[in-house]
Amino acid sequence: MVCQVIRVAVAGASGYAGGEALRLLAGHPEVEVGAVTAASSAGARLGYVHPHLLPLADRVLAETTPELLAEHDAVVLALPHGASAALAAQLPADVLVLDCGADHRLADPVAWKTFYGSEHAGTWPYGMPELLTGATSKQRDALVGARRVAVPGCYPTGISLALAPGFAAGLLEPADVVVVAASGTSGAGKGLKANLLGSEVMGSMSPYGVGGVHRHTPEVEQNLTGAAGEPVTVSFTPTLAPMPRGILATCTARVRAGVTAAQLRDAWQQAYADEPFVVVLPEGSWPRTSDVLGSNVVEMGLALDERVGRVVVVAAEDNLTKGTAGAAVQCLNLAFGLPETLGLPRTGVAP
Amino acid sequence: MVCQVIRVAVAGASGYAGGEALRLLAGHPEVEVGAVTAASSAGARLGYVHPHLLPLADRVLAETTPELLAEHDAVVLALPHGASAALAAQLPADVLVLDCGADHRLADPVAWKTFYGSEHAGTWPYGMPELLTGATSKQRDALVGARRVAVPGCYPTGISLALAPGFAAGLLEPADVVVVAASGTSGAGKGLKANLLGSEVMGSMSPYGVGGVHRHTPEVEQNLTGAAGEPVTVSFTPTLAPMPRGILATCTARVRAGVTAAQLRDAWQQAYADEPFVVVLPEGSWPRTSDVLGSNVVEMGLALDERVGRVVVVAAEDNLTKGTAGAAVQCLNLAFGLPETLGLPRTGVAP
Amino acid sequence: MVCQVIRVAVAGASGYAGGEALRLLAGHPEVEVGAVTAASSAGARLGYVHPHLLPLADRVLAETTPELLAEHDAVVLALPHGASAALAAQLPADVLVLDCGADHRLADPVAWKTFYGSEHAGTWPYGMPELLTGATSKQRDALVGARRVAVPGCYPTGISLALAPGFAAGLLEPADVVVVAASGTSGAGKGLKANLLGSEVMGSMSPYGVGGVHRHTPEVEQNLTGAAGEPVTVSFTPTLAPMPRGILATCTARVRAGVTAAQLRDAWQQAYADEPFVVVLPEGSWPRTSDVLGSNVVEMGLALDERVGRVVVVAAEDNLTKGTAGAAVQCLNLAFGLPETLGLPRTGVAP
Amino acid sequence: MVCQVIRVAVAGASGYAGGEALRLLAGHPEVEVGAVTAASSAGARLGYVHPHLLPLADRVLAETTPELLAEHDAVVLALPHGASAALAAQLPADVLVLDCGADHRLADPVAWKTFYGSEHAGTWPYGMPELLTGATSKQRDALVGARRVAVPGCYPTGISLALAPGFAAGLLEPADVVVVAASGTSGAGKGLKANLLGSEVMGSMSPYGVGGVHRHTPEVEQNLTGAAGEPVTVSFTPTLAPMPRGILATCTARVRAGVTAAQLRDAWQQAYADEPFVVVLPEGSWPRTSDVLGSNVVEMGLALDERVGRVVVVAAEDNLTKGTAGAAVQCLNLAFGLPETLGLPRTGVAP
Repeated sequence: MVCQVIRVAVAGASGYAGGEALRLLAGHPEVEVGAVTAASSAGARLGYVHPHLLPLADRVLAETTPELLAEHDAVVLALPHGASAALAAQLPADVLVLDCGADHRLADPVAWKTFYGSEHAGTWPYGMPELLTGATSKQRDALVGARRVAVPGCYPTGISLALAPGFAAGLLEPADVVVVAASGTSGAGKGLKANLLGSEVMGSMSPYGVGGVHRHTPEVEQNLTGAAGEPVTVSFTPTLAPMPRGILATCTARVRAGVTAAQLRDAWQQAYADEPFVVVLPEGSWPRTSDVLGSNVVEMGLALDERVGRVVVVAAEDNLTKGTAGAAVQCLNLAFGLPETLGLPRTGVAP
Repeated sequence: MVCQVIRVAVAGASGYAGGEALRLLAGHPEVEVGAVTAASSAGARLGYVHPHLLPLADRVLAETTPELLAEHDAVVLALPHGASAALAAQLPADVLVLDCGADHRLADPVAWKTFYGSEHAGTWPYGMPELLTGATSKQRDALVGARRVAVPGCYPTGISLALAPGFAAGLLEPADVVVVAASGTSGAGKGLKANLLGSEVMGSMSPYGVGGVHRHTPEVEQNLTGAAGEPVTVSFTPTLAPMPRGILATCTARVRAGVTAAQLRDAWQQAYADEPFVVVLPEGSWPRTSDVLGSNVVEMGLALDERVGRVVVVAAEDNLTKGTAGAAVQCLNLAFGLPETLGLPRTGVAP
Repeated sequence: MVCQVIRVAVAGASGYAGGEALRLLAGHPEVEVGAVTAASSAGARLGYVHPHLLPLADRVLAETTPELLAEHDAVVLALPHGASAALAAQLPADVLVLDCGADHRLADPVAWKTFYGSEHAGTWPYGMPELLTGATSKQRDALVGARRVAVPGCYPTGISLALAPGFAAGLLEPADVVVVAASGTSGAGKGLKANLLGSEVMGSMSPYGVGGVHRHTPEVEQNLTGAAGEPVTVSFTPTLAPMPRGILATCTARVRAGVTAAQLRDAWQQAYADEPFVVVLPEGSWPRTSDVLGSNVVEMGLALDERVGRVVVVAAEDNLTKGTAGAAVQCLNLAFGLPETLGLPRTGVAP
Repeated sequence: MVCQVIRVAVAGASGYAGGEALRLLAGHPEVEVGAVTAASSAGARLGYVHPHLLPLADRVLAETTPELLAEHDAVVLALPHGASAALAAQLPADVLVLDCGADHRLADPVAWKTFYGSEHAGTWPYGMPELLTGATSKQRDALVGARRVAVPGCYPTGISLALAPGFAAGLLEPADVVVVAASGTSGAGKGLKANLLGSEVMGSMSPYGVGGVHRHTPEVEQNLTGAAGEPVTVSFTPTLAPMPRGILATCTARVRAGVTAAQLRDAWQQAYADEPFVVVLPEGSWPRTSDVLGSNVVEMGLALDERVGRVVVVAAEDNLTKGTAGAAVQCLNLAFGLPETLGLPRTGVAP
């Protein structure tokens, strides 16, 4: 364990991801919150922008500059896609940079170009420690001591963890994976859009990004391909649910001939037996997003539908915690050699 | 058009489906609400059980008996599964019986036994007028003048209408259909269960009936098989959403080789061009459950995901209106030779 | 009854009040929806702006001009405060103008100036037919045949109807009236404000306009003063509730010495015994906003708190229906000599 | 500070208050969760009853017996009203008993009898450290080293803290206090009641306990009377809001002649300047319940309505945290000489 406190800056602190990073960092026993920066909100009191962050209420948002950020041990970038690469390039190599944006997640420049439309900024270690990268290996190894981390997208977190055990164990067909996920509205950010008004979203479900065009699709495929050792393709449809937080991902894949329910359950349980933040629920139990509200945990349940030859895995997470800021803090712990669970809640706020 | 008013009784009037039937019937220009009956709530004022039904507030719930129901031109049965068959058998053949329960929906006794566990009660004309039963034929023909109607299940309504055009046109593969749907809590009924308390469902999404065990699965397969002319199998996962009403069904199927987006759109538009209660939204538009709140309309949007060779159709409906009681009233109109749209809202209550 | 259809234009049709006016007018048997106009949304399809209004989906929003509006029998103005006076002045005297804005509600120019800050535009007949204007007289008389109507504010509707019977009967003290009301978010309009995002309002209650500064305060005082025959002052605090629609107004006033619960109940029941849209619930029953969703009804319950000498009246309404657009249609019926209830729902959409 | 860990039992652990106590105790650095007990749920896994409490998932609920509870340093009683007195009488005097029920809150046996209908069980030190009990004295003194604590009711917490500064400073009239509060549904408990179903509460506001009959009324009056030094009477109306957690209390009282806004603000700021869990927001800022979700903080804003001579104070709290279980833990800290804020969140989980 390091002997002195770790000073962490948050860039893009006025948004929902930045706010959640601050909530977790403010309660982390080895961290001191340093600079909090923003763009259009620079100059505002944090108590005005995030009234729920009482202990930081008197902090004032500064302009986001590389000079200011560089004075810290670690920097959380909670910026719009495309904004982090240029900034990160100006930060010293020994400062830990945790990019909550997508800029450095994809290894394939073609996939990047197809889904994001801009030039590829290069690939950083992917911040999902529990992700199987083969039959037994996990992504964690790449994160210990890292100084650049691409924090995963919110949807890919639940989806990839939900399906990777089956692919890593060779139990699933790589084609015809279908995922439908429901997200709380904070996943759509704090930007002012008519379809995100409370009057529009309360009491309503709606889809978006239909037809395989959501940008998290190639990220999921990359993760599952890594676990499977062969190309996996995914049909992914996101929907917007009338709740502020939470993702429920319903993930199905065809099982290979002869695969049994017991084999499936074994594979999932083995994959996550020692993981503090991934829970495979007992048979017949299913996750609820409310149970992981504010917690860094992904909960999942699974069942085999023998009639149609598909496994169905349903995973719940908090899109802002394990889906974004919690993953960033978890990677910070790994990067600095701290206990991986430090400062990260394993209880949800329910009901 | 009939010359005298149609007297309609509602059995099981204390539940959500019964209440919605009464809401629609009370506003129907050719209908007079007759007896309203219940089991444990018999004796209660309707104003106590359904305070939203102001014009009927002073009605008193009677015991459900065949004698009482038999005095009407039509009877809506909004009873638990298994309760309607015995009752219907005691009603005269010339009384229109609209069964909102499942008892008479399935043609296959084996499927019934597998999913419901009891003896098959026989099959009635299926009350989904817009359902394609072949390349161009529709279910409507079987409903004109009928006196026994099996009102469809809430999930099967949106799902079947969402996918039937592609199957009827021969554009979709019959295997590997995957559907994930979110329902408002009224779909789970008014029974007192801890998981349906407001404190538990608000702000939360959760699955249930995972693994292909939900009872609406064979009903969907029956409908799509009818449209396709060959056996269709479906992986179906329902989820509970934090809203009182509404179903959003995300339905995907593999397209046959060479099928184009234009072909798909043509098939869907042709199927529903003349339908007052089924809307295919313009390209790039997607339905929201709030837009059909209290309306008898199913709205849907579709897109082809060429990367994975799947069409994705997302449909929204009000589970209590078009998904149950509105369908019953629509069938009543057909059965009695009234204009099909009489007394049925085509506007939703939004926002 | 008039023999030909009434052509009604809606100006400001893109907002929530305008949308609700269109929903009701589209279902009104004696009305034809004429021009639908807007400001920044002019040129858009109505199906894009209000996807729930299916029967009007292909209408196109026009620019709001007096020339276009003048071609109609009636015009509903659903414009921001301050915008309707200038427009109304350019409309012919025989066109019925129903102003959903505040411009013509207040009789006192000083109160107007204090709360709205601009010049007073004059006073029109106030569109609350059920409002007692003395011991037995009601506001209805002023509306029959009117061609200019100031449609009431959403909060004043429930609050004024909740308390007027006690003031008209001389049972209440005119000072120390206290009202706290909760409104759904549609009451705050469709403007893009960060505090109205779904992520901010879901799961949260918050006050606004605290300290007697909300603009509906003088309107309530004017109404209650009219009923009492002496000046009534009100402490009013509005709050924002996590629901799209609905107002629940908790209204308390001190009772005069010796007033009994029976006297209070009698006064309220007599006041509204013949009113189709105002319901006094039986003793021990209390209203819920969900029961009047989409309905033109105000429901209320009352109790005497003898310990503190106060009557507490709680009223529920739909802020967009009886609170705005339903009241406009009700006044249109009165103005044109139609049955007052024509085209106005008395059932709510619940659950 | 004590040198060894404090073992705490929770009786009534299956309900919402018990669950929240466990959430906080599981994260308290000086506490070890001991026995968790229940009545009808005895024998169940805690992971089944409270799936959000992952670190305690494998605990099994035991029967509630005095013998089992007596083995602990402290016992949290989260039982129905009337159940705690008998149990507490059987616990050793040196075991800290934190009673979340009402049994030991009221000093006046007549008030107890009037509102609760049973025999008075005696009065314990009242667990609201920040409550002014005179011009400058606070309730905290009575809690240091206590072994019996009556944890306050959820409504009285926000209401009493909202108004006590004005009474303690002699700025408010003791009569005509009016409070209207909105509570999330968890305040109504986990019992199965039809009006608490999600379908009934979502999208709806409704009152209950109208007319001064809610049992928290005498508790609020007792607290304000203590602060004022003269009898204070309160008109209190609670309402149910469509959210799982949170209380927003709108509290108004008449100010004495000549009292200014500045005097009011000074009184409130002085009262809570050093309090970690009570925040007086800057002028023009107002609290939201979402900002204190899961936090032990009460936030409040105030304004003087000079027209009607009333101060309006609006306070937000989490009914389960500061309103119940957080207060219990805060009192535990005081009772055992620990830092008062230990283990208690001051950040909310927002959005």
